[in-house]
Amino acid sequence: MACESVTPARGAVFDMMEEMLAPLGFQVHRFIRGEGPEGSEEEPVENLFAIRHGPEGSKHFAFAGHLDVVPPGEGWESGAFEPEERGELLYGRGAVDMKGAIGCMVAAVADIPADAGTISFVITGDEEGPALHGTRALIDLMRERGEIPDLCLVGEPTSVNKLGDMMKIGRRGSVNIWLEAEGTQGHVAYPHLADNPMPKMVAILAELDALVLDEGTEWFQPSNLEITEFNVPNKAHNVIPGKATARISIRFNDLHSGASLSERVTTIAGKHGGTARPVISGEPFLTPPGDFSRAIAAAIEAETGIDPESSTTGGTSDARFLKDLCPVIEFGLVNATMHKTDEAVAIADLATLSRIYRRIAMTALGEGT
Amino acid sequence: MACESVTPARGAVFDMMEEMLAPLGFQVHRFIRGEGPEGSEEEPVENLFAIRHGPEGSKHFAFAGHLDVVPPGEGWESGAFEPEERGELLYGRGAVDMKGAIGCMVAAVADIPADAGTISFVITGDEEGPALHGTRALIDLMRERGEIPDLCLVGEPTSVNKLGDMMKIGRRGSVNIWLEAEGTQGHVAYPHLADNPMPKMVAILAELDALVLDEGTEWFQPSNLEITEFNVPNKAHNVIPGKATARISIRFNDLHSGASLSERVTTIAGKHGGTARPVISGEPFLTPPGDFSRAIAAAIEAETGIDPESSTTGGTSDARFLKDLCPVIEFGLVNATMHKTDEAVAIADLATLSRIYRRIAMTALGEGT
Repeated sequence: MACESVTPARGAVFDMMEEMLAPLGFQVHRFIRGEGPEGSEEEPVENLFAIRHGPEGSKHFAFAGHLDVVPPGEGWESGAFEPEERGELLYGRGAVDMKGAIGCMVAAVADIPADAGTISFVITGDEEGPALHGTRALIDLMRERGEIPDLCLVGEPTSVNKLGDMMKIGRRGSVNIWLEAEGTQGHVAYPHLADNPMPKMVAILAELDALVLDEGTEWFQPSNLEITEFNVPNKAHNVIPGKATARISIRFNDLHSGASLSERVTTIAGKHGGTARPVISGEPFLTPPGDFSRAIAAAIEAETGIDPESSTTGGTSDARFLKDLCPVIEFGLVNATMHKTDEAVAIADLATLSRIYRRIAMTALGEGT
Repeated sequence: MACESVTPARGAVFDMMEEMLAPLGFQVHRFIRGEGPEGSEEEPVENLFAIRHGPEGSKHFAFAGHLDVVPPGEGWESGAFEPEERGELLYGRGAVDMKGAIGCMVAAVADIPADAGTISFVITGDEEGPALHGTRALIDLMRERGEIPDLCLVGEPTSVNKLGDMMKIGRRGSVNIWLEAEGTQGHVAYPHLADNPMPKMVAILAELDALVLDEGTEWFQPSNLEITEFNVPNKAHNVIPGKATARISIRFNDLHSGASLSERVTTIAGKHGGTARPVISGEPFLTPPGDFSRAIAAAIEAETGIDPESSTTGGTSDARFLKDLCPVIEFGLVNATMHKTDEAVAIADLATLSRIYRRIAMTALGEGT
């Protein structure tokens, strides 16, 4: 937490990670991707894949997470990158999102015998940023090396009020769609010489806003569409604008895909004389309740007495990529202070989470606890 | 035309006007209104009311117009305020809009005997600007003095292709309405914690756009509503905006008033959770075809052989104020070059228009021609 690893992260924080994993018997593979200038979406980012093979035929369990953090912002009581214990809390950027959890993963693994099975760490320095060269590049590497896990746990801070009260068995997908309607500028007194694109855009948005995408599923809340922008400033009171632009954002469940929604919106836009340009941020994922979620719930209950809720709410995470490899579930610290000033974790939770992670890994490897 | 009288006009151009009218027997009243700084909507503006009384019981005919002009812009072949004859045209800002026409009015009156009746000039320096302290102030003065005309001719350039092809017997009203919908900003992934104002505004605009205000009248084209602005920029893809603002512009005929439309739009906005702030630029006016328009048409036909069209199209003019005093009709030069670079008038048209104006005034005063 003392490493200033504002996204995209490279260097020192990965050195620390390697120094912790190598003594535990892990082969550590670090690589940098991205060739753009600083501050661009292509700024270089570091990734780390570490693996400790169990006996031939072992199961493979992966811990996944990120070492980059969001910028600290202003107003910290102690330094954002000078972790400090005050009372029962440890303060510092990344305490819960998610260097704290990564520390717990390492502590958990230190307590798991090497012959229990194959364990890997899938750690990126670009989860809080554009995520172009982070977990996606790690997945490519794992595929190249033939190291596909059987199960994967992402250590995002999923707990809400108490450690253990929520895990994420899925996440909604996300797509932003830019809409445009062309017209012909003109004078309001001579509308027959102009072609106002505003009614076209209003009609597009009215139809989109009236869509009921679905009623939700057993595990997902209903998909939701929000109009987020309509940007046609116009100082001249008597001028009909020549172009109308707007943007919508859809968070969607597994009844849809980014492509199916993009096509649907494009059709509606076209019907009213407009066009649509979708940018898909992530597809939905769902690891339906089963052995893996039951193992996690059992581990949590054993250490905390809490029966965790299985949720699919909230934003996106790198689980949207990892779900292409194997079943993935997210579980981690209490997220109340994440991304905020004075981000902090309960010190006791770190020990508890380490034990929970150990139990999950042992069960996943078929070793029981 | 050599006076640089960009709106709001004062001084030299009014000195010229007074120098022309005084020798013709007119009492000239000049006054300045507005106390704001230069460039503000309250910048001082000069007005001139001149009157020559006919015998007791005479009819009173008013010529109305403006001596201010729009800014010259760039690219003139000769100086915008250095009037120059080239070929059959006279070039200079104001040639057709409307110093040329005012010259014709003076020339016409010079040829009308003083005992023909009462003639007045209602001349402002603020028609092209905000028009707050121009013709409205002149009307106040005329009312105070009890000098209410029987008929009024505004010399705006109403001719389209040839001098005499169109007069304006009315103009539509104009109202701009600012719309606002409040909401609560939030994150697109947690829409239940936000209240997106965009659907409210889209619903308001969709309902407004679907309105059929009327089908037009015998003398007016249908009233028309245009959406002119929707100004909600938003760089953050995942943020639901907290407020939506838009603007519409309505040009309306005499089936409506600014107040009736404002009320209607306010009701629709309120129905969808928004508010409306109307600014009425002008009420419609109509001087239904009758003796006055027939007199004008006869004068035009006598001098040009053209039977003028009676129109109510185009933007607003100061006739919107003068119609409160007496029947008013607009007729003037060809408007093809108005507000443009190299504004120019056919020199022959000036002589013809002077004769037409003389005929109109004589008929209006009951003197025949």
